[in-house]
Parts: sequence; structure tokens; C-alpha cells
Amino acid sequence: MSRLLETIDSPADLKALPLRDLPKLAAEIREELVGVVAKLGGHLASSLGAVELCLALHYVFDAPDDQLVWDMGYQAYAHKLLTGRRARIGTLKQFRGLSGFCNKDESPYDLFTTGHGGTCLSTAMGLAVARDRAGTIRAGEGVARRAGAAPDQGGEPRRVAAIIGDASLGEGMALEALNHIGHVKPNLLVILNDNKMSISQPVGGLSKYLNRIITDPLYNRLHEDLQQLVAKLPKGQRLVRLGQKVEESLKGFVTPGLLFEELGFRYVGPVDGHNIPELVTTLQNVKRLKGPTLLHVLTLKGKGYAPAEQDPERFHKTEPFDVKTGQPKGQGSRVKVQGGRPRTSNLEPRTTFTDAFSDALIELAQQDARVIGMTAAMPEGTGMAAFGRRFPDRYFDVGMAEQHGIGLAAGLARAGRRPVVAIYSTFLQRAYDQIMHEMCLQNLPVILAIDRAGLVGEDGPTHHGVFDLAYLRVFPNLTVMSPKDPEELRAMLRWAMARPGEPEGRAGGTAGPVAIRYARGGILCGEPLGRPSKLSLGKSEVLRQGGDLAILALGSLVYPALEVAGRLKRDGLEAAVVNARFVKPLDAALIRQLAAQTGALVTLEEAQIAGGFGSAVSEALEAMGLATVPLCRIGLPDAFVEHGRRDQLLTLCQLDPNSLTPRISAWYSALKISTERVGVLSSPE
Amino acid sequence: MSRLLETIDSPADLKALPLRDLPKLAAEIREELVGVVAKLGGHLASSLGAVELCLALHYVFDAPDDQLVWDMGYQAYAHKLLTGRRARIGTLKQFRGLSGFCNKDESPYDLFTTGHGGTCLSTAMGLAVARDRAGTIRAGEGVARRAGAAPDQGGEPRRVAAIIGDASLGEGMALEALNHIGHVKPNLLVILNDNKMSISQPVGGLSKYLNRIITDPLYNRLHEDLQQLVAKLPKGQRLVRLGQKVEESLKGFVTPGLLFEELGFRYVGPVDGHNIPELVTTLQNVKRLKGPTLLHVLTLKGKGYAPAEQDPERFHKTEPFDVKTGQPKGQGSRVKVQGGRPRTSNLEPRTTFTDAFSDALIELAQQDARVIGMTAAMPEGTGMAAFGRRFPDRYFDVGMAEQHGIGLAAGLARAGRRPVVAIYSTFLQRAYDQIMHEMCLQNLPVILAIDRAGLVGEDGPTHHGVFDLAYLRVFPNLTVMSPKDPEELRAMLRWAMARPGEPEGRAGGTAGPVAIRYARGGILCGEPLGRPSKLSLGKSEVLRQGGDLAILALGSLVYPALEVAGRLKRDGLEAAVVNARFVKPLDAALIRQLAAQTGALVTLEEAQIAGGFGSAVSEALEAMGLATVPLCRIGLPDAFVEHGRRDQLLTLCQLDPNSLTPRISAWYSALKISTERVGVLSSPE
Repeated sequence: MSRLLETIDSPADLKALPLRDLPKLAAEIREELVGVVAKLGGHLASSLGAVELCLALHYVFDAPDDQLVWDMGYQAYAHKLLTGRRARIGTLKQFRGLSGFCNKDESPYDLFTTGHGGTCLSTAMGLAVARDRAGTIRAGEGVARRAGAAPDQGGEPRRVAAIIGDASLGEGMALEALNHIGHVKPNLLVILNDNKMSISQPVGGLSKYLNRIITDPLYNRLHEDLQQLVAKLPKGQRLVRLGQKVEESLKGFVTPGLLFEELGFRYVGPVDGHNIPELVTTLQNVKRLKGPTLLHVLTLKGKGYAPAEQDPERFHKTEPFDVKTGQPKGQGSRVKVQGGRPRTSNLEPRTTFTDAFSDALIELAQQDARVIGMTAAMPEGTGMAAFGRRFPDRYFDVGMAEQHGIGLAAGLARAGRRPVVAIYSTFLQRAYDQIMHEMCLQNLPVILAIDRAGLVGEDGPTHHGVFDLAYLRVFPNLTVMSPKDPEELRAMLRWAMARPGEPEGRAGGTAGPVAIRYARGGILCGEPLGRPSKLSLGKSEVLRQGGDLAILALGSLVYPALEVAGRLKRDGLEAAVVNARFVKPLDAALIRQLAAQTGALVTLEEAQIAGGFGSAVSEALEAMGLATVPLCRIGLPDAFVEHGRRDQLLTLCQLDPNSLTPRISAWYSALKISTERVGVLSSPE
Repeated sequence: MSRLLETIDSPADLKALPLRDLPKLAAEIREELVGVVAKLGGHLASSLGAVELCLALHYVFDAPDDQLVWDMGYQAYAHKLLTGRRARIGTLKQFRGLSGFCNKDESPYDLFTTGHGGTCLSTAMGLAVARDRAGTIRAGEGVARRAGAAPDQGGEPRRVAAIIGDASLGEGMALEALNHIGHVKPNLLVILNDNKMSISQPVGGLSKYLNRIITDPLYNRLHEDLQQLVAKLPKGQRLVRLGQKVEESLKGFVTPGLLFEELGFRYVGPVDGHNIPELVTTLQNVKRLKGPTLLHVLTLKGKGYAPAEQDPERFHKTEPFDVKTGQPKGQGSRVKVQGGRPRTSNLEPRTTFTDAFSDALIELAQQDARVIGMTAAMPEGTGMAAFGRRFPDRYFDVGMAEQHGIGLAAGLARAGRRPVVAIYSTFLQRAYDQIMHEMCLQNLPVILAIDRAGLVGEDGPTHHGVFDLAYLRVFPNLTVMSPKDPEELRAMLRWAMARPGEPEGRAGGTAGPVAIRYARGGILCGEPLGRPSKLSLGKSEVLRQGGDLAILALGSLVYPALEVAGRLKRDGLEAAVVNARFVKPLDAALIRQLAAQTGALVTLEEAQIAGGFGSAVSEALEAMGLATVPLCRIGLPDAFVEHGRRDQLLTLCQLDPNSLTPRISAWYSALKISTERVGVLSSPE
């Protein structure tokens, strides 16, 4: 039997189908998505839960004239299939293939390129307000009036809908937006896609509230009962005076979404997110409502694929798996399945930084009862889940609330605890002000374990953690480190925890804040060097001697630097290799020494080059009066890097040994000619 | 009659007073605060509103063993007076005097050094959780058990209370914390100091909700009515089944704080924040409650000082004034009173950057209907208020919600509008991720007007806007500019708005995002140069020729650079002076040319030196193969700079002409010796 899905090249094709065919189409979409993700790995369970919602939205609304703003987008793969991307779905998250999130450059149906949670309410409000206030734009003033109207609807204003998950709703940005939307009251439909499950456990009073709405039959029964009750009330004097107002208030009370109503929304729901006729009817009803409406849709994460329904957390983001069993596809013993995090690259190492962090933190916590573990909705991805199982009393998953997380950690540190906060580099951007104001200004001993620093691979530009060196390095009091391998990460964590402080003081110690950034996966090449040498504040580790030039490498690029040095030697060049370890404070003494010994410094970092580690070295040289020492800074370009396997992206950015060796060699040759011209450089001091 | 206040050197002295004396003490505190701020200028109205609350808290709680966490702290000047800082209150916000906010280095009664809003719920939760889970710390493991107990109460656990204003409660971080506290349920008292007024107008559904609680008499009457009603109900079958549950729910309904109750708090209030006996009794009752409690206290901003009660917005933060009339004290015609922003320095210029921005934006909006103005709770401070009065339909004050503000601006830009978002540099840190994810990744033409960049003066380390160059420069697609004077700011704003894009395109233009950073006040020295030369992307302006060295100055330091060049000339040194204008993209061609002409470059910036403008110049030299050109980067140190007048702080940081001239001169002399040693440098190309 031919598939309906093959006939859908745009939402118009979908609208041509009778409503009764949509369940069949939904089943085909699920089959397609399960097949693709089984092969490639990636996010699955959320999209399975939102199939009917995607169908109903495109059936009722007229995108792209009507504007659907998906939060993030990993839940909207059915939307991708319905909007002309069916033929390319097999390239999902592959290099040069479809993005795993919404992407404005991929389709006119994607309004924004997204990947961080909780943003769609604000951006959709912007679209809605621009439409509602279209009248303020006079003709001929740069933007045509039609910006505010869907032309094929005879000038009827376009609709704007934002689709947000229950976990994202607890994010500070989303809560700010909710508060503002309820105040400004634009014509905006907010669809709460409530699968009662964030990536792991739902967190927060809001979550509990939503759950109560759904599960408490009292709400539903009271609606009827109280209406009857009001009708029967004795018409006493006070009640006559209150009159109609009481009835309205009682109605308000039995509306399950009172919290949203109090904030200024009209609440509709909850509706069954897998019942297409109900969804279509409801959307048709709400789409003409004025003001902000919150439609509460209940969905089941993993819906329609039994293994994902049974273990939605594992199938939130999964490695490739066998469709029949749901079991991971064997890639030999090197694949360690951990909490649904995929290990899709062939270059995946035996031990990852994340694994080492997870183990080391548990060890530390066993020895030191002050240790607290914290993550923000990424317990599996950051390796915090194991800590949480072992020390539930000393563990916090704050949900998608990085700002609050850092504040909470600061409070704990102020009270003498030693919180370790594991957050991906890109999501830590959400807590930028808190790192300054709550951590560094207070000089509190909070340890940031910054996972996924550098290029993250398939999740692409929204997720690459490439800005952190520039954004962290500027803060006073903060120590910034990066380990060359998982074993060194353990050592750094132990070192940071053991920093001298004032354990008995009221201030909870003066050790100060530490940030440790490390890449996704493990070492990129070579064999692990084993137990690292002793760590000391602001001291680098010389791994290889060499008199011609010195390569100062940071974190993930230390092993590639060793490989490069080996290759340069074959060309007769002796390159020293330094494992920088510290970005702040820098090992200025060693830099001075190497500058004097070699007169040629190269820095390597897997971070945006502007303001990063290389700039720190440049600044240190300048501060020592050595600004004229030749320096070659190598890092990531000033551009948003696309998605693809991590090794592909490193090659694309010329950070692999094959690219690095000729780059460094060419720079050195040019320098030698220039240096011979001006004479040998010497240190002023 | 002697004042009670003179007898209060600590909260213990306060507790020795009979309750009946507290109103007299409150009056004395008000008199003291009005006197101090009348003389010095500063925040006043919020502290006047919180006098009774401060008294009652210290009367009931035992600080510092009990922990009171004030949000920000400019509302807590009575707290300063009561906690041993009475004798120093006359130094408020003065150089080396008391901070205008809470400051951990100033007093053991201040738990954190604060200044940004919405943080106290998170940090107080950390303190509370650390206390509640004290049992997990075993003896001898680094922290004594007493960390969790106030020893003078016989081991009874210390209390933790957070005091937050209604405006701060709408901040994303505070909302995240509210959500998490309601979930974890620590023993924590949150005091909502509700004066129904953020710095200007209250914003948000939450604000309206709070207002409804207070003003709607229905809530209070219903409480009685419905309880009687339930008692009278016919005992029908369904109601019997629902039984007690209905009654509980009805009680819940008539609790005005249902929204907080739904989030997991026990709500108490509202109580009169100026009735000391009521406050004391209530605090005594709630302090022993388990779990999170929200105490809703109603206060009047400016309470007890008639001019401030009548115009609390003006007295939020005021210039010096006459106590009798409330009128600003004359400092001659140069003082322009604007929306309560103080101009306390003798160096205040005729025109400020803020004034110029305010005027220029209105001009632009008159010509271009796409222009939208936005601020985040700082309409007066940023000069946005005038725009809002002129174009109410195109104006948004999003409240203390910078994250949402940037998202909203992105949505507006996506729909073809041209939003200009004016936020102080330090508060923009709150929207760091949104600048990356919503603005730069989408390449949308949002214009950031970053006021108070650099040292802000009396507000001190929490408010200095010194990290922005490093944190913004790393983002792809972003253009970063800084004007030398107010007139150039106008030109930059016009230039940014006129950038070529795709006005008719769906994407709302491809002009891309622009950030313009400018200092508090106006030019620091010299006379305005008048109409600036034409602006061009990535092009600097040469203001003075000179063959010995070139000073590349950014923004506020351009006029000082001209002054320095004049002084250097007296010593026989010819210094070129360049107004950089662009930090990104840099004028690489000019840098190359100046490097070749002078062989000695100096950069000047009022920003943290790590990763800033000077580093950008250094990076550009390196990228052009000119890394060996001597460069001297001058900027702010890697440290949190204290508070004081802006000119005092610039001198402290050696950025005034008196300090800069010898610094540059000395560097040049050392360089000349070194250069003569190694021969003349020449450009490789």
C-alpha cells in the first residue's frame, strides 16, 4: 500500500487530505522518524509525542503566512517532514544535511534558528506585536503593509503561535515572557506541549502545578458542582451585593489554568494531544480568539513506538538502535551507553571527559561531605545522574534554570558547601551575569564543570561551546582551567576542591571560583599519557622539549599538538609542546622562558579566537614587555560553525593535525625569513 | 530631646527598646536618611518605604546568626543604620565610603555584595538548603555542625529570610528560583516588599496580579462568605463524596496568594508594611513555619517624606536636594535634572551620551515607522522615557527582564521592525545568551544601545560596565561601535539604522545586529569637536597626525587621548590620535598603515583589558602577520573596581591624562631603546 507521506510536499498537500486520513499519516510519520533516528541516532521521543500536534497545526494554520514558532525544534521533526524536507530527512544532523533543530536557512517554515530552550514566547510575541501594530507603519516607509497580513486570506491578519514544552516553560526567559505577554496582551497563541517530562525529571512548582491540573479529578467535578451550587444559593444580602462577581470568580476557580489566567492569559485545556479531531477542532476555535491564549496539550513522550514509550528518557536523544528491539546497535565494546547520550562518531574514545568527571565527583563526595552536585536539566549528559543516585541529599537538578542554579550554588558556597555545577558551555551563557555577580564578585568557591566546550558536533551552531574562554577570562577572581584528557580532568577537579580556603570562616572559604572547561568525548588522537603531573595554580606542563618553536596547546588540542610536533620533527623542526592547563592565571614565567628559548610561540585552542587563550598569551607577552615576540594564534574562526561530526568540523576548521602541521610550518618559515631580516630577538629583561 | 538612633550600635541595642519606641526610631531613621541623601544624592524612596520592615526584621530575627538576604540593597539603608554603620552613613556612595548596596566586605550583616535585582531568592535558598541538610556533614569533615545552627539559640536552626521587591520578582532568575523553591520546599521566608512600583511603572501580569490581591475587596469578603456557605450546603451525594476537599479548596481560593500557593509556597498577607506591631507579630508567627513562606508586605515608596511620597519615581535615585522643598540643589545651569538620574560629579558635561541618544532615537522614529524603542526597567536612566511618551505604540519597557527583551526585539526585527534596545552594560549581562542565540545567530538588525559602559561611578563594582567588549566581540555577525562624544553617538545610531538590508525580504533585513557602547555622562575633557566625519563600516577616524607613535582610542578615551597627545608634544613626541569607532570589525588597513608609519601603537579603552579593544588590535596585527609590531594596551585592570566619583575612579585606574601621559611616555622610551637594539621594524608586506 502506498504511503500518504509520499504525497506531502508542503502543508497544502496535507490540507487536501480528509481529516480521517490523518491518523494513518501520523503512523507513517512515526515509522519514518523511528527509521531515520534508528539509523543515525539523535532526538526521537519528543518528536514522536508531537506528531499529531504538528499535523493539526499545519492542517488548521496556513504556514508560512501564519507563523509557527517552535521552541528549540528537536520536537518538530514531523514539521520538517510536512514542510518540504521529507526527501532530506535521511540527512538529519549529518554534515551538510538537515539541522536537528529549527533552522531559518533551511526552510521558510522555520522562523528562527534555535536550539536553546524557552525562547519562543519572546520571539513569537515580537512577531505578534509587529503584526498587531502594523498600523503604525505608513505606506512607503520601508516595509509593506502586508507584513502584518497573510495576503491569501484577504488581508486577515496572520496568526502567530508559539509551541513550548513544559520543561522550557520553567526557564527564566520564558517566565519573563509569560509575565510580559499577560501584561501587553497581544493576539498570540501559546501551545504548551506538556509531556510531563523534561529531559529527565520535571522540576519546579510549576511542573507540580501542571500535573495537579491533569490528575486531580476535583477540578473537573467542581466545575459542574459549583455552578449548580451558585444557582441554589440563598439570596442573602451580602451575596446579592456580590452577585454575578462571585459566580465569575467561582468559574475562574474551577478553570484548571487559574495560574495562567491570573497572569493574563485565557487558558484552554487540557486537550488530548494524540486525538487529531479534538486538536483540530480546538485549534480552529482558539485561532480566532483575541488576546493571549494558552492551549494546554497533553502528549506522551515517545508515543507510538513501544520502546520509547517505555523508556522515554533513553529515547530523548539516542544512539543508533535496532527498530525491532529498541536496543542500541553494537559498535563493539567501545560503545558505552550512558543515559541516552549518543556516541555516534567513529572517533569516540574509550573514556570520555564526562565519564571521568562523573566518577571523580563521586569519589570527592565520598571523602568530603561539603561537596554538592548540581546540573540544569542535563543529569545524563553531564554525568551528574550517577552522583544524584548516590547522594540524593547533596544533588540538585534545577531544571532549565541556569541563572538560578548559579545563584543557588553561590548561596551553598556562602554557607560552607563546595558546589560543583556541571553545565554545557553553550547553556552556561544563560548564567553569564550570575557568574559575574553571584560567583566572581563574591569570590565564592563554586566549581563550574563546563562540559561540551568547543565544537559539539551534530547539534550545531546553537550548541557549540566556543565563546566561553572570551566570556570567562574577563572576570576577576575566576580561575579558568582546561584538561588535556579525562585523567587530568579528575586531577583538576580534585585540585580545585582542595584549594586552600577558610573552611571554618563565616564566608565559607576564600578559595574562589574555578571554571574547568572540557570537550565532548575524549582525546582526539594518540594514546593517553596516564597519570598527569602535579597541578599547581597557574602552572603549565611541558610535555615535549624543542628549541625552534613552542606550541602552547589548551585542553582538547594538547594531543593533536603532540602529533603535530612529531610530524614537524620529520621536517627537521623541533617544537616544544606545552599543556597550558590554565587560561587564567596564565603561566607567564614559562611563556617568557619559551619566548626566550625559541622566539616563536604558537597557541592552539578549540574556542573562538577573539579574546580566547591565544589572546591571553598575547596579553601576557605585552604585559611583560615582550609584545614583539612572534606569536601565531590558532583557534576557531569568527563565524557560527555548522553541524556535523566532531571530527568533520575540526577538519573543516583546520584544527586537525593534517591541517595544523602545514599551517604552523608555513608560519614558522615566513617568520624565520622575517626574523633573519631584523636580527635575533632578545628579551628586554 | 536626644535621639534613640544614637543608642543603636547593633541589632542588640534595638531589641532592648520597648516595641512602643520603634515608631519614634523609624521617624529618626527617616530624618537621617533624608538628610544624608539630600546632601549626597542617591537612592532614597525605596529605603524610606522599608524602614519599618528593617526595624521589625531586626527586632524579631537574630542577625547575623539569622541570615537576612536583601535583594540589591538600596532599599536597606535602615538596615545599614541598625547594623553598626550609623557613624559612616554620611559617606554613603562616596569614594572609600559605605556602598550604596549590600556589601559583604562592609559588614557581617551583609551576606553578599549585590546590586543586580532578583538574585536573593536563589542565594537565600542556598543558605537555607545548606542549613536544612546540615546533617549530611559529619563531624570533623571540614565544616563544623554549627554552620547550621545559631549557637545562642541553643542549637535551634538559624532562620533565613530573603527580602525582594515586586519589580525584582518578575526577573527571570527570581521566577526560576520561585519555581524551584516551591518544589524543594526548604524552610525559607520570602518577604515580598510590594510598593506597587518598580523604578518606573510596574510591568507584567504578575504585577497586575499583585495589585488585584490588594485592591479587590472581593477576596477578603469572600473568605468569610464562602466559609459560611460551605457550612450551609445541602449534604447531597456528590458533595458528601467531595466533602472536606471542597472546603479546603474553597479556602485555597479565597487566599489572595493562590498563585504562590500553587507554586508551593504558603502565602501570608498582605500586611501593612508601616504598622510595626503588625509586622512584628506577623514575623514572630511566620518565623517558625516549616517550608517556604511568602509574606506579602505592602509599603509606600517614599513613605514619611512628603516630596518623595508625592513623586517616588524622582526620589528613586535623586540628585542632592533641599530637604524642606524637595527641590534639587542648584549647581548652576549645567545641572539638567532628568528623570531622577543624579548628576553628582563636578565633571558633568553639558550634554550626556544618554541625552543625545534620547533625542536621536526620537528623530529617527519620526522618519522611520519601523523604529521600536525598548528598555528594561530603566526608562529614565537610558533616556527611553521621552521616546515612550512620544511613541507609546512603539515603545516597550519590559521590566527587569533583559532576556525576554532581547528575544522580543529579535521577534520584532524578524517581522521587519528596527528595534533599539537601551540597557546598561552591566544589566545586559543578563541577556548574554540571547544576544548570541536570538540576535547574532539569526543575524537580525537589532540595535543595542549600551549605556553606562565603563566605570559608572558611585554604584560601584556591581554596576561598572567593563566586561562588554570582551563578551560582545566574540560573537559572529555583530558590529561593535563606540562613539567619542554624544554628537557621534547620534551619528552612529543614524548610521546603524540606515545600514543596507533587504527591507522587503521575509527575513526583515540582513543588516545584522549592532552594539553601540557609551559611557555615563559625556566627554571627559576638552571641547566637543562638533559634527563628526562620515561613518563607514569598520573605519576609524584619524583626529591627529603624528609620526612617533599612534594612539588608538576608543569611545570615552578619545578626548583624553587628544589631551595626552598635546602633552606628549611638549616633550617632543608626535603622537597620532585615532578615534577607533569600531571594535568589530576593526580598521585593519589603518592599523597596518599606522604600524608602518610609527612602529609603535597604543590602545586606550575604558573596559577590562582582557579580551577587549586592545586585544582586538593585537589579534588584527597577528592576523596580518604583524604580531611583532610593538603594542601597548591600556585599559581597566583585571579586578572589581570600587565605588566613587567617575573621575576619582578613572584616576585610580590611571586612565586620566595625568596618569596616561607618563605611562605612554615611559613605554615609548623603553621601546625606543629596545628598537634601536634590534633595528628598524618593517612591515612584511
